[in-house]
Amino acid sequence: MNDPAGQPEPADPTHPAEHVFAWLDDEAERRSQAGLVRRLRPRSATAEEIDLAGNDYLGLARDKRVTSAAAAAALRWGAGATGSRLVTGTTELHAELEHALARFCGAEAALVFSSGFTANLGAITTLSGRESAIVTDNYIHASLIEGCRLSRADVAAVAHSDPEAVAHALRTRRHSRAMVVTDSVFSVDGDKAPLPELSAACREHGAGMIVDDAHGIGVLGEGGRGAVHEAGLTAEPDVVTTITLSKALGAQGGAVLGPRRVIRHLVDTARSFIFDTGLAPSSAGAALAALGILRDEPQRATRVLDVAAELVTRLRAAGLSTSDPDAAVVSVHAPSPEHAVAWATRCAEKGVRVGCFRPPSVPDGVSRLRLTARADLTSTDLDACVDAITMTAPQDAAS
Amino acid sequence: MNDPAGQPEPADPTHPAEHVFAWLDDEAERRSQAGLVRRLRPRSATAEEIDLAGNDYLGLARDKRVTSAAAAAALRWGAGATGSRLVTGTTELHAELEHALARFCGAEAALVFSSGFTANLGAITTLSGRESAIVTDNYIHASLIEGCRLSRADVAAVAHSDPEAVAHALRTRRHSRAMVVTDSVFSVDGDKAPLPELSAACREHGAGMIVDDAHGIGVLGEGGRGAVHEAGLTAEPDVVTTITLSKALGAQGGAVLGPRRVIRHLVDTARSFIFDTGLAPSSAGAALAALGILRDEPQRATRVLDVAAELVTRLRAAGLSTSDPDAAVVSVHAPSPEHAVAWATRCAEKGVRVGCFRPPSVPDGVSRLRLTARADLTSTDLDACVDAITMTAPQDAAS
Ligand SMILES: Cc1ncc(COP(=O)(O)O)c(C=O)c1O
Ligand SMILES: Cc1ncc(COP(=O)(O)O)c(C=O)c1O
Repeated sequence: MNDPAGQPEPADPTHPAEHVFAWLDDEAERRSQAGLVRRLRPRSATAEEIDLAGNDYLGLARDKRVTSAAAAAALRWGAGATGSRLVTGTTELHAELEHALARFCGAEAALVFSSGFTANLGAITTLSGRESAIVTDNYIHASLIEGCRLSRADVAAVAHSDPEAVAHALRTRRHSRAMVVTDSVFSVDGDKAPLPELSAACREHGAGMIVDDAHGIGVLGEGGRGAVHEAGLTAEPDVVTTITLSKALGAQGGAVLGPRRVIRHLVDTARSFIFDTGLAPSSAGAALAALGILRDEPQRATRVLDVAAELVTRLRAAGLSTSDPDAAVVSVHAPSPEHAVAWATRCAEKGVRVGCFRPPSVPDGVSRLRLTARADLTSTDLDACVDAITMTAPQDAAS
Repeated sequence: MNDPAGQPEPADPTHPAEHVFAWLDDEAERRSQAGLVRRLRPRSATAEEIDLAGNDYLGLARDKRVTSAAAAAALRWGAGATGSRLVTGTTELHAELEHALARFCGAEAALVFSSGFTANLGAITTLSGRESAIVTDNYIHASLIEGCRLSRADVAAVAHSDPEAVAHALRTRRHSRAMVVTDSVFSVDGDKAPLPELSAACREHGAGMIVDDAHGIGVLGEGGRGAVHEAGLTAEPDVVTTITLSKALGAQGGAVLGPRRVIRHLVDTARSFIFDTGLAPSSAGAALAALGILRDEPQRATRVLDVAAELVTRLRAAGLSTSDPDAAVVSVHAPSPEHAVAWATRCAEKGVRVGCFRPPSVPDGVSRLRLTARADLTSTDLDACVDAITMTAPQDAAS
């Protein structure tokens, strides 16, 4: 206990301090009974597991060129950005990364945030507001949902992957200003949003579009330029793309890409940009190096898709029920949260780390194993993965 | 432009796509006329400016031991965490950092987030909700405000630094569950919140307390253990502390410190933790190294306060109107946003980078220069700073 020397004594408590957070124990008990308790399992630097759980799709997080760039940036620029991007937190490295991202994706301009999460908050809140409508797919990522809530807009979440439902919501909205907000690749099942149809609906109804390309960048489109590029929309005046630097680019951070006037607006008004310390130079340097590698080695992007397809073919051949992968993410249905956890644990015991998604991380309440393909998985790795997953499958997981 | 080969043609637009974001130009024009346009000014790695604008209070962001630790962590653990903390994003380095932070501050447990911003979102949203009341100081940081908005709680923002107003709001609240949310050191003027009185009010009325110690950690309390430690509250069962790793600790990231049951609750339910990639290993390694230096060199914390006090004494002697600094932050009033910008620009021309806070970054609409003391400022640096600021002051800045 500390010694609050010279401080006034707190008033004799009417309510015991221990009771204030006692309700958390009841909630914990409820989660425990529902099989929804999470445990952090720190991994070691020398773990020999095969990773089918992370989002390092191109295998760049541990690429020597990327880690060396992170190290060099820390040594040259400092360990932290030291302030908000508006004050001292913008280095020439941040500016270079922004130019490179915009150029790579074919957008007019880009703005780097400290995470994909805060990039989404910034884009959504500043491009909508109390006087506007937002139409979303009801499977969008939590960071987009938080952005919608913060925006105070009139939000309608419509059926998954249903452009006609989006068009209907746009047609019947009460506010003239409107945005459609969607993932490009949905994070749980890895299915692609119908971007061309959504864009057509937006144009017909005078709405803008924000597409979160977190799982598309580095994986889809020409040389990994992303799903928005693949749909021919990155240079459009009514489309804003958000990405993360923390998945295919192997680093940390996020970015918003779009028309210059949108980027300027974000610089002036996005609270998650203005009131947040700039991205650490090491992460900016790593993302810039990863982008360079992707430019030089575009085959990495196609390799991920091939690995995902092979994984699915082989798991289905073994009788498991998987999603149709449009990108790097593959999900495998599990009969219950408890089964999913036990299955993932047995995979780990066999040396394969798989993801396990349970409520509330799944929009439909169905628990799943979540597998992610990586460009650097060898065919030996793939054999080991398929063996581990099929041999440990619960009885009733087969379709 | 891209080539959306094989995609359906968008419907002939009823609304020209260029019009969708045209309203942003009107907003930009309004900001321009109000003197509120921001410009990012990338700094070079070799800039010779004296930095009075960043939050690197202990001079650790560029300390060789810290930057080397960042570099070593990137090389050892990878450039990115590769996934959510719940999946692959927790390394032994993250766990070590959490133990070290909890031990240093005297809290039961700690949880590391990718930023102080997301740590605040996580703490506030999970410890309150639709069925609870939040009472805040009306000068709290934007990230706390966003957390309050997201929480859907019944939020009352009361007068600045007024524990009686907080007690009144708690007494008259409609929900039985309640949290008080405050900065420990307010980010604009650097004044300290009356934590002991606030804690007494919480205890009298059965409320919990979340204290954002972003500007206290590394600066206030015994050996820089922060303002919450100074008030003897870090081990209390009804108090939760949030900190950032991006200011005095020179890195990036944030953390929540508090009772073990609170930390467990965050792991299971905080959306800005669960749905966000873990902090990059380089930043975790840097923060851990910085914490070790602070433990070994506690005099750094007192030195910051001495520098801040000297700065204020000398600026006041020159007739300027400054805040009373309780920590490292000193503000100097400027007559208008335009004056503030011009003043800061003239300081930069003289080789001193100062912060410039204008609406909407200031709660009271008063524009200011914002100066931050650093432990590693020499007395020659200080002379140069005082000269630059006083010689370039606008006519009507003197008090
Ligand atoms: C679709 C989607 N958007 C945004 C994010 C958040 O990005 P970041 O982890 O960089 O904050 C994630 C995952 O973390 C994601 O899956
Ligand atoms: C009081 C306060 N809280 C939280 C934050 C956010 O911390 P971070 O920059 O690590 O996101 C800041 C500044 O950035 C701050 O000044």
